[in-house]
Amino acid sequence: MLTVKTPDEALEVIRGSFCCIAGEENVPLDQAAGRVLCKDIYASEYVPGFDRSAVDGYAVRAADTFGCTDAIPAILEKQAGIEMGSGAEPLRPGCCAPIPTGGALPEGADAAVMQELAEDYGDGTVGITKPAAPGMNIIYRGDDVYPGKPVLKRGKVLSARHIGALAAMGMCEVPVYERIRVGIISTGDELVEVEKTPAAGQIRDVNTAMLAALCREMGCDTVEYGIVRDEEKLIGSMLDRALNECHMVLMSGGSSVGEKDAACRIMAARGEILFHGIAMKPGKPTILCKSGKKPVIGLPGHPGAAFLVSRLLLPQLLCSIGGREVRRYPVQARLAEPVSANHGRAQYTAVKLMDNGENVVAVPARGQSGLITNLAYSDGFFCIPRDTEGAAAGETVQVYLYDN
Amino acid sequence: MLTVKTPDEALEVIRGSFCCIAGEENVPLDQAAGRVLCKDIYASEYVPGFDRSAVDGYAVRAADTFGCTDAIPAILEKQAGIEMGSGAEPLRPGCCAPIPTGGALPEGADAAVMQELAEDYGDGTVGITKPAAPGMNIIYRGDDVYPGKPVLKRGKVLSARHIGALAAMGMCEVPVYERIRVGIISTGDELVEVEKTPAAGQIRDVNTAMLAALCREMGCDTVEYGIVRDEEKLIGSMLDRALNECHMVLMSGGSSVGEKDAACRIMAARGEILFHGIAMKPGKPTILCKSGKKPVIGLPGHPGAAFLVSRLLLPQLLCSIGGREVRRYPVQARLAEPVSANHGRAQYTAVKLMDNGENVVAVPARGQSGLITNLAYSDGFFCIPRDTEGAAAGETVQVYLYDN
Repeated sequence: MLTVKTPDEALEVIRGSFCCIAGEENVPLDQAAGRVLCKDIYASEYVPGFDRSAVDGYAVRAADTFGCTDAIPAILEKQAGIEMGSGAEPLRPGCCAPIPTGGALPEGADAAVMQELAEDYGDGTVGITKPAAPGMNIIYRGDDVYPGKPVLKRGKVLSARHIGALAAMGMCEVPVYERIRVGIISTGDELVEVEKTPAAGQIRDVNTAMLAALCREMGCDTVEYGIVRDEEKLIGSMLDRALNECHMVLMSGGSSVGEKDAACRIMAARGEILFHGIAMKPGKPTILCKSGKKPVIGLPGHPGAAFLVSRLLLPQLLCSIGGREVRRYPVQARLAEPVSANHGRAQYTAVKLMDNGENVVAVPARGQSGLITNLAYSDGFFCIPRDTEGAAAGETVQVYLYDN
Repeated sequence: MLTVKTPDEALEVIRGSFCCIAGEENVPLDQAAGRVLCKDIYASEYVPGFDRSAVDGYAVRAADTFGCTDAIPAILEKQAGIEMGSGAEPLRPGCCAPIPTGGALPEGADAAVMQELAEDYGDGTVGITKPAAPGMNIIYRGDDVYPGKPVLKRGKVLSARHIGALAAMGMCEVPVYERIRVGIISTGDELVEVEKTPAAGQIRDVNTAMLAALCREMGCDTVEYGIVRDEEKLIGSMLDRALNECHMVLMSGGSSVGEKDAACRIMAARGEILFHGIAMKPGKPTILCKSGKKPVIGLPGHPGAAFLVSRLLLPQLLCSIGGREVRRYPVQARLAEPVSANHGRAQYTAVKLMDNGENVVAVPARGQSGLITNLAYSDGFFCIPRDTEGAAAGETVQVYLYDN
């Protein structure tokens, strides 16, 4: 009963099967970066809150400058200058007031004249040498936003510039989704902890540390359950514990037939198997299960494959259960060497990017099975669709960066 | 003495003027993500540490299978199966041993035959129907890395896949640069704290929260010194304190002529002004000063300009003083609308990216002065070089994403 999906179908299954299970909370603005907005944000005030000058110069009534020239300047009486951060006394007809960039336009004024187009005669008058049009060099109240204007959408992952926008509107508390808590379980009799020296036939548990770092990069909290021996009872009870404590579980395991069957049985006993197998290379033996409202992913044991599958599925899963927007834009690069592909499976090829000054060049990582090599040297991957013969040298490929 | 630089010249000045001032420390592997490697990392062991099977099947001596066919299989005696995580007893001539994917190849074996090409007769013998070549389906000890092989370079910003590579090599402690500590000072009489309601002529201090978030996104620690009134003595003593406590200081201030002059005087009294003005729009009134070995950046007060200038200069500064590699790849997008440009200054235009299914489309943010609008709605920027007339609709532009 292997229900193998293409990568796109797998994402579609996720979209159709899960709903948001993250709670909502308010966090202080200075802790909101990296969090996911849980409400649409509308402006509640005018920004700027007053008409401002966009230049250093003089606030004027435009009409008072009409017809002036270099030869026949408009002579205006100079009022008191406008101070930053203060209101200003109204501008009288026939007058001008020195104003700094960002200064509040006085009542009565409707334009600002650049300093370079004015001359202070030192006798209480100023000559303006070029007529000002009404509105010239003015940023009006509400030019940026006004009450009710939509500013940020629910699902937005807040970064510095959004923090800036929220600060400008005086939002000290930000409504965000609770961080998704991901449980991470590594299974396999061959695994030992990173700090141990592997004995004959043993390898280190790479997936726990790597997947935890990946989940944290994506804004999640993690609970690492460590290594569980390949016994159905032990794995099952660890999975129960993780499902109880977390929103989602990543379980990576060996890829031998017996182990795959066991992982599938363990998951099936706790929920619905949505698919068993993705037609991608690497990454085929991936299982997705829905236990209650929570996803459990059975990942391949090979760290390279586990990484790539996680990179593919997690953004959509975090969107579905955690409200986080999915937005990824590839970098276009020219392939340095031809890459052959198997028919019938989408092939994901790790590449290193290099900028040769003219183009971004993608150099395929050699040896699909190289664990450290692939992970350490590559910057991202591109996909050769199933039923395609491969990609030629010089071809433009769409590279999805890992760190993005 | 305004020494205005182009953006490229400004980066060149940074490269030539600063050296690494970040200390070094060791952090546990699970805290190393996002940190910057301070040493080249070489493998110190073999990965994998033993010859492994790449398939589920049988370990064999290839010579024992030569000449076999579907019709005349090679009949081999079945030894005890190889368990994951254990060493194996040697393979005797004329024998085979069941082996799982990842299992240790027994001494004497030199190939693995896929299960699908073997039949277990149930009488202690197995028939192999296709000859195995020596080395077939074997991942050799050290195939991935071997002692002395360079794996990661100093300066690498560690992300999940690097954590994976380090875990595979058993590195529990990772040598990294100390986080760069950035002091943030906002100056201006018009500024009030975010939580306050601005009175006439006042605006909220956006830069403190925004720049702090930006620095933290780039792996820095921050010290926020808040708002300082426009008095040279106050600003000077706050800058002294920040220089004392931090590796670098970002000071954003008003853009009126008087304020700019004051900022420049204050910095000049504490170090060397490397440039005063960048020929870019927005962002012209930017000052870079070197005080001892520490950079002080005088940023424009307008948050949109302060953000863009920081996004441009910080990566190179963090490279120079913090050892962090600079690597940015643009996303190619088609411009949705024409953008006009001023001659004589590189113009940075904020754009929102949209994927129309065929192409990534860049929609310019309207209104350069829109603070919230530009920051909240745009995903990145592209640059129109100085002395260029602008960019046409449909033109391909290189968009540098903010969140990257």
